[in-house]
Amino acid sequence: MRNELIVPSRKVYIVSEYSCGGKEEMKGPLKDKLNYCCDDDKFGKDTWEKAESEMQKIALYGALSSAELKDTDINILLAGDLTNQCVVSSYGLLSYDIPYVGLYGACSTCALGMGLATCLIGGGMADTVATVSSSHFCSSERQFRYPLEYGGQRPPTSQWTVTGAGAFILGDKGEVCVSEVLFGKSLDMGIKDVNNMGAAMAPAAAQTIRRYFSSSANDPSSFDLIVTGDLGCEGSRILCDLLLMDGIDITKNHTDCGLMIYDIDKQDKHSGGSGCGCSASVMASDIIKRLRTCELNDVLFIGTGALMNTLTLYQGGSIPAIAHLVRLSSGRDKNG
Amino acid sequence: MRNELIVPSRKVYIVSEYSCGGKEEMKGPLKDKLNYCCDDDKFGKDTWEKAESEMQKIALYGALSSAELKDTDINILLAGDLTNQCVVSSYGLLSYDIPYVGLYGACSTCALGMGLATCLIGGGMADTVATVSSSHFCSSERQFRYPLEYGGQRPPTSQWTVTGAGAFILGDKGEVCVSEVLFGKSLDMGIKDVNNMGAAMAPAAAQTIRRYFSSSANDPSSFDLIVTGDLGCEGSRILCDLLLMDGIDITKNHTDCGLMIYDIDKQDKHSGGSGCGCSASVMASDIIKRLRTCELNDVLFIGTGALMNTLTLYQGGSIPAIAHLVRLSSGRDKNG
Repeated sequence: MRNELIVPSRKVYIVSEYSCGGKEEMKGPLKDKLNYCCDDDKFGKDTWEKAESEMQKIALYGALSSAELKDTDINILLAGDLTNQCVVSSYGLLSYDIPYVGLYGACSTCALGMGLATCLIGGGMADTVATVSSSHFCSSERQFRYPLEYGGQRPPTSQWTVTGAGAFILGDKGEVCVSEVLFGKSLDMGIKDVNNMGAAMAPAAAQTIRRYFSSSANDPSSFDLIVTGDLGCEGSRILCDLLLMDGIDITKNHTDCGLMIYDIDKQDKHSGGSGCGCSASVMASDIIKRLRTCELNDVLFIGTGALMNTLTLYQGGSIPAIAHLVRLSSGRDKNG
Repeated sequence: MRNELIVPSRKVYIVSEYSCGGKEEMKGPLKDKLNYCCDDDKFGKDTWEKAESEMQKIALYGALSSAELKDTDINILLAGDLTNQCVVSSYGLLSYDIPYVGLYGACSTCALGMGLATCLIGGGMADTVATVSSSHFCSSERQFRYPLEYGGQRPPTSQWTVTGAGAFILGDKGEVCVSEVLFGKSLDMGIKDVNNMGAAMAPAAAQTIRRYFSSSANDPSSFDLIVTGDLGCEGSRILCDLLLMDGIDITKNHTDCGLMIYDIDKQDKHSGGSGCGCSASVMASDIIKRLRTCELNDVLFIGTGALMNTLTLYQGGSIPAIAHLVRLSSGRDKNG
């Protein structure tokens, strides 16, 4: 029988991280923690897609600077986003001289990138790997839903695509260790509502968390935080309920990146934030920093993604989802 | 200085492979070598996207059967395609119980998947990895160019997207060894013509081949075959010219998957084949088989991809491209 949980024998660390956000993110609870914010969602560019590319470029530049590394020190760059054919990443990272691997994991891309980077370093195939992901409210809205100018009504279960990006450098030295990786399996529970991604993704998150606890000696209380990204209010409730039915209680230490990035009521963000840039910017600006200061010591991060496009929904298809898990521990190891 | 060429110390092999093609591919030179062909490009489904998903499903089933493996024997599944948000892969592989990693590399996806699988196994992070990629003429045409019904005129430099899929199982036993991997860097030379992908991708292929020979003791004559996928007639000519300018002569042993899949003149395929399914089906049906029988002993496979979408072209953007390299050797090692 295969072993699904990946535990690299070589220790892998997050060397540095950098986050970007737009004008809505500047008004949220993480406003003082995001490294770079721009009150113009165009980031000085003439299209939203170029703005999103610019955020990726800035995020990677920031993470490299913070680690005092140059692009030529990085073995492999893993990146992805939500735009058709992931062009935001291709264009945004063109100026860097790094071998490039394109990923597609929808909103799970941040966790997917961290997981793959950990495998590449953990197995000795690379020493230093960068991973970047992003999303932009405006480029997503017009691609997946309606033209912005149309001003479509948003139902209460809808999530707000974060304008943000996060970049992470992983290597063999650092304070925050990525000690375990569990790649998700795609799961389709028949949800067809593009305005209820939380419901589509929660079962995938539940499946990955269930798989993790069944292959690990840990239980939910072993962790300071179990953070999903991004299920929003609706999906988070469904996730906790689904797991309770299996006797796994994460209600005490669960949170979701989609609930952290905005002051949901005050900013009128319905079910919360979403998009590849949501978990990327929340992890880079908040969770990893708190692991660095040992305010948190052991965290499960489960990135969730909805793997659909508009065409397949018009054709009557439902929304498959996926959830990738990485375990993050502060340098001061709990057990010694 | 980083080492860009990846040479796993643990030997990695292609355990099995399986190829699918559509009705145009059935009329080409590989008609007797493709494992599964369907004279209806819908593969019994009601949309082209579902047909493409079906090809992926069949290809993976075939590769698993041929290796006498079950889905639960596979540690990780790497897959990608050309559709927006890679939905063909997400839907097509849903029925398999395998942790899933989505890739985006456009037409380079087959080489990208083989390269990453090699890293995961070579570094001991997985024992058995599957990789699948596909494309479909009809789903691509309407997404990237014109509705099929419009019957747009195709210029001589245009390539024909292959209706096909290829699946590969990689592991630590077999007859065909993946001994070296070099991930490409994105490169944008300013080409904006969506009907001349060969010109956009050739410089990326030249860059990767140049990087390979500068970091390896080999020269072009060390290989029985240097196969790109898919530059077509136009791109292949440009590639050979670019490399000759650097003193690298691959004209004697170069070929391109886009030139192998069709009888270009007879089938009126202009510059040749393209699409993720082109190199995947050509490698699975022809090149790997010839390595198995030792008709070929040492092959460089360079998968090329154009990393653009239609929106960025409408916005005036040019086409970044990438080329990933894997070295394939027959079991009977040349040097011993």
